[in-house]
Amino acid sequence: MNSGTFKAIFEHAKEWTLEAGRQLRETLQDQIVVEYKTSAADLVTEKDKAIEQFFVERINEFYPKHFILGEEGIASGQEFQPEKETVWIIDPIDGTTNFVHQKKDFSISIGIFVKGTPMIGIIYDPIQDECFYAQKGEGAYHNGKKLPLLSETTVEESVLGINALWLTSNEIFDHARFQSLVRHARAVRSVGSAALELAYVACGRFDGSVSLRLSPWDYAGGVAILEEVGAKVTTIDNQPLSISAKRTTVFAASPKLHQEIMENFLLSSDIPKYSLKV
Amino acid sequence: MNSGTFKAIFEHAKEWTLEAGRQLRETLQDQIVVEYKTSAADLVTEKDKAIEQFFVERINEFYPKHFILGEEGIASGQEFQPEKETVWIIDPIDGTTNFVHQKKDFSISIGIFVKGTPMIGIIYDPIQDECFYAQKGEGAYHNGKKLPLLSETTVEESVLGINALWLTSNEIFDHARFQSLVRHARAVRSVGSAALELAYVACGRFDGSVSLRLSPWDYAGGVAILEEVGAKVTTIDNQPLSISAKRTTVFAASPKLHQEIMENFLLSSDIPKYSLKV
Repeated sequence: MNSGTFKAIFEHAKEWTLEAGRQLRETLQDQIVVEYKTSAADLVTEKDKAIEQFFVERINEFYPKHFILGEEGIASGQEFQPEKETVWIIDPIDGTTNFVHQKKDFSISIGIFVKGTPMIGIIYDPIQDECFYAQKGEGAYHNGKKLPLLSETTVEESVLGINALWLTSNEIFDHARFQSLVRHARAVRSVGSAALELAYVACGRFDGSVSLRLSPWDYAGGVAILEEVGAKVTTIDNQPLSISAKRTTVFAASPKLHQEIMENFLLSSDIPKYSLKV
Repeated sequence: MNSGTFKAIFEHAKEWTLEAGRQLRETLQDQIVVEYKTSAADLVTEKDKAIEQFFVERINEFYPKHFILGEEGIASGQEFQPEKETVWIIDPIDGTTNFVHQKKDFSISIGIFVKGTPMIGIIYDPIQDECFYAQKGEGAYHNGKKLPLLSETTVEESVLGINALWLTSNEIFDHARFQSLVRHARAVRSVGSAALELAYVACGRFDGSVSLRLSPWDYAGGVAILEEVGAKVTTIDNQPLSISAKRTTVFAASPKLHQEIMENFLLSSDIPKYSLKV
């Protein structure tokens, strides 16, 4: 793919994302039709499907050779290996619970990967009208303003995105490690949209973000943006992410903070203790 | 105090809060001078002091018989019993870590209590330009729009504000109870401004909010607003809040959800179990 084609794809992706965002903003004036999926926490709305369909139609029209990965699986008739193709990885509404309950703090996330390499990332919060985006090698932007490379910080100075859910006993990871990490960080927050939390790391609002159960569409846009500001993004076992995996853990931070948290908390054989006093 | 005086106080309090918010918005263009207090997580800025001073001067000029409770203690020369007087309870910047790190998700919180009764509450998010306010008996408002009484919900359907910090071992409360609660709720979030989380409960974005370590200025504005939408606000031991206490736990929710969480999680002799699977 030459750079001209590449720029055209980016412009299309951004234009479609902003248009989809406008639709979501308007929807929030209307009645929302909510459908339950596998659990009460896993809401999905009519609009989730409509926005995915909106992207699928445009991608099929303009880029018929591209593949699509999305939560709703509207394009699931396709058979392909994501890491060998050009793939649009789409989350029409990242943070559906926020969309329904809060009518804010959700986003549209688009990642375009070529043979497994993140080339384009777009995360759009239509309520705040904040668009975070990047093209590989061209830097990352927040509403037209170029984002600087991440500055280094320490755990003690850091604000981390981590949901309280990961501090309960679970089958994925030893929650005692997160308990210790939370106690050693300056502060922890939880937004409820993984894509927005990754965007917040990219623009320095957060210093890191941890999630234990993400699908490619939750993180693909974020990874493309984070790479352009020098962040390190891996699994919590310090392994590279693979968009072929349906579910994965994700940990993003600036490289030194990533290393400090890996060595002292996530991979350490000796979890740092903390006092009971808060 | 007659209702005319009362309305005048409300109008002053709201006008000063919006003016202070404008100052905070403008400050965020400038360099921020940060000072460390007792811990790295407890940041306080020059502006925190300046805004408290701004209120103290105006209250002393217009309402010289009123008392002031504030984090910075600028008016601390006063000796008084908060529950016998008319008291302005002021948090110039609720969420100072967010103010510094995120430049969003902080608020100015004002509660005016007369002999221990919350009469006026104002919580202003100057970045979103969202103002939540109430006068006793007059209802609660969000940017001029009257808020309905809270609708009832169940734990399974609820979105709760709770910081991951409270799911670590601590000297205040058995964190296993919060672990179980988090697992039974639909979702949990953490904003990092207690006042904003209480405002979000009042407007239905959150269904409940739990904090273990609040001072009167963190919750006074929120309590005044929440009472006008029918919420129940107590300590996590189901005791009434007292503005004479320097630190307290706070739990706010609609009455039935409050009761369900009290009975089944916070006061239960048998904490509900959960599966390891998330």
